[in-house]
Amino acid sequence: MAEDDANSVFIGRKPIMNYVLACMTLFQGGSSEVCIKARGMAVSRAIDVAEIIRRRFILDATVKDVKIGTELLPSRERGIPTNVSTIEVILTR
Amino acid sequence: MAEDDANSVFIGRKPIMNYVLACMTLFQGGSSEVCIKARGMAVSRAIDVAEIIRRRFILDATVKDVKIGTELLPSRERGIPTNVSTIEVILTR
Repeated sequence: MAEDDANSVFIGRKPIMNYVLACMTLFQGGSSEVCIKARGMAVSRAIDVAEIIRRRFILDATVKDVKIGTELLPSRERGIPTNVSTIEVILTR
Repeated sequence: MAEDDANSVFIGRKPIMNYVLACMTLFQGGSSEVCIKARGMAVSRAIDVAEIIRRRFILDATVKDVKIGTELLPSRERGIPTNVSTIEVILTR
């Protein structure tokens, strides 16, 4: 999962409205499609972001697709690779 | 989101392999479709369950659909309703 595609927002540990704003900025810059990506515990926050945009800010936005997957990442403590779930939510307007 | 449909497994706080086993039991009982449901922080665990089944146990299983949504639930501390993200992962074989 690439973290830095154009039209993508990668969900990390910042306040959730930062990511909502990042998506809104992409839409308002002319993008018709925005991809919200997250790994591990941030997956539920990716859905939060998509739902906040769709229900509160861009009411004609729809969820075009949701992709789930697994990535092998080095764990934070010891560097032993562990499987981490990923999500990509594609919003269109 | 109903928690107790037939062919559905609702993800809670038990060890993750319990839910993997529950899904496997449904498939082995003749279901061609199993729906894995979760809310809030358990959302990433629902994806873990789907990915473990698909990659380790039932290699011909595919993700037919992923639905995301929002539910208004009373919060645990004070009973004030809060929005919670939900996911439904539909696996078929």
